[in-house]
Amino acid sequence: MEDLSFVPDLPSGPLDVYRNRSSFDWKRLKLALEGDIELLKLKYRIWQTLERDPLFAHSPVTLSVEEQKRMTQLQLRRINQLNFHPKDLATSSYSKRTRTVMTINEAIQSLNPSVSVKMAIGMYLFSNALLSLGTERHLKFYEATFVDRQLLASFALTEIAHGSDARLMRTTATYDPHHKQFVLHTPDFEAAKCWVGNLGRTCTHTLLFAQLITPDGTNHGLHAFVVPIRDAATLETYPGLIVGDMGEKIGVNGIDNGFIMFNQYRIPRENLLNRTADVTEDGTYESSFSDPSRILGAALENLSAGRIGIMQESCHSLASAVAIAIRYAATRTQFGERDKEIPLIEYSLHQWRLFGYVSAAVVFRLFVENFTRVYLGIVEKSNSGMKVDNLSETVSEIHAMVSSCKPLLTWSVLLAAQHCREACGGHGFLKCANLGDIRSNHEPTVTYEGDNNVLSQQAGNWLLRQYSASTVDSPLGTALFLNRTRDILGQTFSCTTTDEVKTKQFITSTYEWLLCYLIKETHNKYEAELARGLSKFEARAKSQVYKWKTLGKVYAEHIVIMFALESLEKKEKGLQPVLNKLFSLYCLWSLDCHLVELYQGGYARGEACARLVREAVMELCDDLKGEVVSVVDALAPTDFVLHSVLGKSDGNLYQNLQKALFSHPGAFERAPWWQQVVPTPASKL
Amino acid sequence: MEDLSFVPDLPSGPLDVYRNRSSFDWKRLKLALEGDIELLKLKYRIWQTLERDPLFAHSPVTLSVEEQKRMTQLQLRRINQLNFHPKDLATSSYSKRTRTVMTINEAIQSLNPSVSVKMAIGMYLFSNALLSLGTERHLKFYEATFVDRQLLASFALTEIAHGSDARLMRTTATYDPHHKQFVLHTPDFEAAKCWVGNLGRTCTHTLLFAQLITPDGTNHGLHAFVVPIRDAATLETYPGLIVGDMGEKIGVNGIDNGFIMFNQYRIPRENLLNRTADVTEDGTYESSFSDPSRILGAALENLSAGRIGIMQESCHSLASAVAIAIRYAATRTQFGERDKEIPLIEYSLHQWRLFGYVSAAVVFRLFVENFTRVYLGIVEKSNSGMKVDNLSETVSEIHAMVSSCKPLLTWSVLLAAQHCREACGGHGFLKCANLGDIRSNHEPTVTYEGDNNVLSQQAGNWLLRQYSASTVDSPLGTALFLNRTRDILGQTFSCTTTDEVKTKQFITSTYEWLLCYLIKETHNKYEAELARGLSKFEARAKSQVYKWKTLGKVYAEHIVIMFALESLEKKEKGLQPVLNKLFSLYCLWSLDCHLVELYQGGYARGEACARLVREAVMELCDDLKGEVVSVVDALAPTDFVLHSVLGKSDGNLYQNLQKALFSHPGAFERAPWWQQVVPTPASKL
Repeated sequence: MEDLSFVPDLPSGPLDVYRNRSSFDWKRLKLALEGDIELLKLKYRIWQTLERDPLFAHSPVTLSVEEQKRMTQLQLRRINQLNFHPKDLATSSYSKRTRTVMTINEAIQSLNPSVSVKMAIGMYLFSNALLSLGTERHLKFYEATFVDRQLLASFALTEIAHGSDARLMRTTATYDPHHKQFVLHTPDFEAAKCWVGNLGRTCTHTLLFAQLITPDGTNHGLHAFVVPIRDAATLETYPGLIVGDMGEKIGVNGIDNGFIMFNQYRIPRENLLNRTADVTEDGTYESSFSDPSRILGAALENLSAGRIGIMQESCHSLASAVAIAIRYAATRTQFGERDKEIPLIEYSLHQWRLFGYVSAAVVFRLFVENFTRVYLGIVEKSNSGMKVDNLSETVSEIHAMVSSCKPLLTWSVLLAAQHCREACGGHGFLKCANLGDIRSNHEPTVTYEGDNNVLSQQAGNWLLRQYSASTVDSPLGTALFLNRTRDILGQTFSCTTTDEVKTKQFITSTYEWLLCYLIKETHNKYEAELARGLSKFEARAKSQVYKWKTLGKVYAEHIVIMFALESLEKKEKGLQPVLNKLFSLYCLWSLDCHLVELYQGGYARGEACARLVREAVMELCDDLKGEVVSVVDALAPTDFVLHSVLGKSDGNLYQNLQKALFSHPGAFERAPWWQQVVPTPASKL
Repeated sequence: MEDLSFVPDLPSGPLDVYRNRSSFDWKRLKLALEGDIELLKLKYRIWQTLERDPLFAHSPVTLSVEEQKRMTQLQLRRINQLNFHPKDLATSSYSKRTRTVMTINEAIQSLNPSVSVKMAIGMYLFSNALLSLGTERHLKFYEATFVDRQLLASFALTEIAHGSDARLMRTTATYDPHHKQFVLHTPDFEAAKCWVGNLGRTCTHTLLFAQLITPDGTNHGLHAFVVPIRDAATLETYPGLIVGDMGEKIGVNGIDNGFIMFNQYRIPRENLLNRTADVTEDGTYESSFSDPSRILGAALENLSAGRIGIMQESCHSLASAVAIAIRYAATRTQFGERDKEIPLIEYSLHQWRLFGYVSAAVVFRLFVENFTRVYLGIVEKSNSGMKVDNLSETVSEIHAMVSSCKPLLTWSVLLAAQHCREACGGHGFLKCANLGDIRSNHEPTVTYEGDNNVLSQQAGNWLLRQYSASTVDSPLGTALFLNRTRDILGQTFSCTTTDEVKTKQFITSTYEWLLCYLIKETHNKYEAELARGLSKFEARAKSQVYKWKTLGKVYAEHIVIMFALESLEKKEKGLQPVLNKLFSLYCLWSLDCHLVELYQGGYARGEACARLVREAVMELCDDLKGEVVSVVDALAPTDFVLHSVLGKSDGNLYQNLQKALFSHPGAFERAPWWQQVVPTPASKL
């Protein structure tokens, strides 16, 4: 057994009542969920280092937007100085290097999401894009951002009037052979690049996507350019640019999102990222599809790495939210009989409101860890020049998987944060409960890096292509069930006990039935719309509601279940009972949302199916009552990182609350503005 | 036809494309939704007056919490000075007076919710409680708050460790016959009163609920006392009190929520609100149930008025949210064919995401307006001493109705605000879109004035009592269907077209079936748990999930449908087509969430029921595409009040966005803290 003494023991207190009932060692579960002891150690090292650093002390009040940006930038700088990269990182394999960087990102995200986003965009996304889209001549930018950390970059794609549909971007880069420069131009405000993280206040360079136009007037489509924005020594923007900060947002206000308009702004020819295409000095466009497999691999990474990062961060936000709500539920009593009050966690309704999300926190984590490993393995193989079988099919499948799972995870976490806040009642509404900030900082994930609704349509596209094709191309196996469509659709619900419903066999086969049914229904609807004379575009639009959209969600759940199950089965024996219960709960709690389709499609008849699924959910909640406190101990970061007056690991709810309320700045002071508001004339009462 | 020229015309612009397609005059719909032209005029007068007042100018950035409190208090004072009460208010009927006050509250809430909450608690809730629980000797407090507006009060009920279960409050008021005083005491921090709006910084008095203890040591339970907190001239709190501000919250930070602990704090005997019970000078407790009907009427008002106010405010928040999202959807284009982009509103998925909430905004408004009228009529009759038939039964039914509808409306609006934000994409994440503030200011409504989950259980209690009783006591008619349970449960789904599904007949009868089924199921589950040996308390707790809780929601929808339908049928003919479509959409879109129960209970078999309901929803969305822009024109307040860069009535989306981004304070300035963050040594790139 590994030595886990680097994970600090939890203080004894009111939560012991439930901790003593759990069937497992929470530190073992923590390790199992992390999947790698070195990465777990790294997280604790980061958390403990930053806890001792005054720059990372929490403010009891929300700082002004400007001050949040300043603090975020200072924290980012400090993290760069501290350099949490292990010594052997540069020489590690791609997989290990990336997983380590992702872990650092996760650890920092749970403390200050704005810092990790700044880092992810300004260093990792930028430098990865350079590696995959650029050539040797761009290595200096890579060195400066990723290795020396002297540059902070940004990524300019979205325009004011165009987000999801990149084809129609209107910013132009016109080549001028006379000066051997590209001339960047923004025709009007609608074409201003916007929402560019780091652009508003801090970045020195941006990676710009613009329509490349050669001197003959031909538009060659979107290409990427490295564009200088600010003088690194003064942070003054260069003439020819209109760069503004987007102002206040709902969350992540530490990030300086910006907009930019180019006024005939010139950059050297060499700043075009020219791996796939270049413009010669005299202005001839040359496409260079010399090594398609490398390009595909690069595309894979660019598209998916950011979204996988979002899923990892979502797992952390979810873990924090449920940890707060469960610890509160175990210490807060309410109602009861004979004036003996009962902890909230004892109520079925409260269990049902929260435990599904606890199970999601565990299952999502198992899925993401497993999937990231598989994903990085494929990219590594592809990058190293080794032949990856069916690389193009693999890239398509991974894109479909990520496009369905990123929406599932980010939406689930958004709902979870809200339910957790409500389950903590009024006290959950306090800023110092931290549920509000967790929620509002998480919120943009459902929109950025691909709007969830748009993304999940793409997953549906892939599935429908597989359905219509003569052979199923699913190297990762997520659509292999399509080879058995006829058999699967012949199945009907036949369980008679909740025990049967809780089995992996029932869960897996029911999900396969659901997928086949929804694919068939979506396909039929789409074909019917085509037959009515609609174009493909129109027919697809008409097939979204109740069909395509539902399909995307069910497919994501199917993937999560598949990858989590594979991971779960490899975990140590002592954890199997609790993991199995959490797994079954997550699956059935998710399936509960699709019961209508089971009935509508004829899989279920009569009352048994809905009843048994729901009874099983309730039984599992009841079974997990003694486990969840230890489960959230395994999920939660340190108290400093969790930063919630309601969720401290000592369980001393009211003492912690008293300290927070009494020490809030100005809590007991007369309002500084009292003279402005006293009644005139003063009342005599 | 009434002269509606006081409602300003809307500017011509890009929204005209859709406005020109609508079947009705949006000003007529606006009047129909308000229900009273004088009240509509009053709202416009308030909005236009405050728009001209610099104190109500919007800030482009969120002010500090302290500054929000100051501004809120100053705005409250200004509103008191402006005195929007019509001249004849004091002599008006109770109904008219209350409806006017409620309208003022609504108008102010849509501009600054913190001001309206301060006003509602500090003046209306307090003064109403004095009238219903106090006697002549408390009239001076009534005069000072409601008439002279020189006092601001608060309402101290919730304690740190006890919210929903009022019986177990631990603050004591012990009578001291020697000094003829009550001695108030807080045993420990867990018993501190908390979340008391206006207490943290501003109120001079609070209405305190404490356990009344007579000199013989008997505890007579919770009673209400008027307690002086601050000197009105200096806003200094009195010795013997520990009064603190609760600090920052997720929303409504203009309200100074506070906590208070009493240290043997003395108040005169006369400060007990003694309508129902008193303590004599020598310390004898005397209950005085002299006029039970009046007391019931008073109880009715105290319990329900605040929650009805929340429902009214929720309608306004919903109206604003959907107005922003629909105007954005009609002006924002995305994707399309042959590079001709299509407005979001043309996409079925986008319609489905939003139109249900538009229909809810209209249907909720019809319901609330009608229900408020009925409610005030009953209270007025009861207060005036006229005999109200079945007053006690009426009070119970109204309590059940409010207890189910407040959760339905507040939760729906919370979801709507989130969906509207997402439907506006990244731009919806800007503070200046106003969807974030609408959401976070609305959020506490699901918790305060009765936690939604606790409240909706109470509605279930009432329904189950009616089900088990020999006769149904439902003076307002919301449970009369129980007299036909057997017939209703014998019905099955028999529609074959979407037209049949859209009828009021289908909707009403299906809801009746659902209610009967859920009541029976809940009853059976509860009885089965009792039979297993559980106590009533335990059996009720075990029957919540999928039963009691669902029942509460369906009952609320049934009430909303019933009252909205009654109101709708009285509206002018020209509005009937659009109102009927909105009504059907709301009902079927709601019913879509209960399809499982229709199948599980045997009402539906096969695919037709789910398919037809969902096809009808999609058809109605399609039908309403040309109407919704005018519908939100009718729902929306003025641009100044709506205060959204995405939702302005001129529809000039990008021009408005440009102005907002360019004029944001410091948008183009170099960060004031640039010197602290420049790379050292400066990069040479």
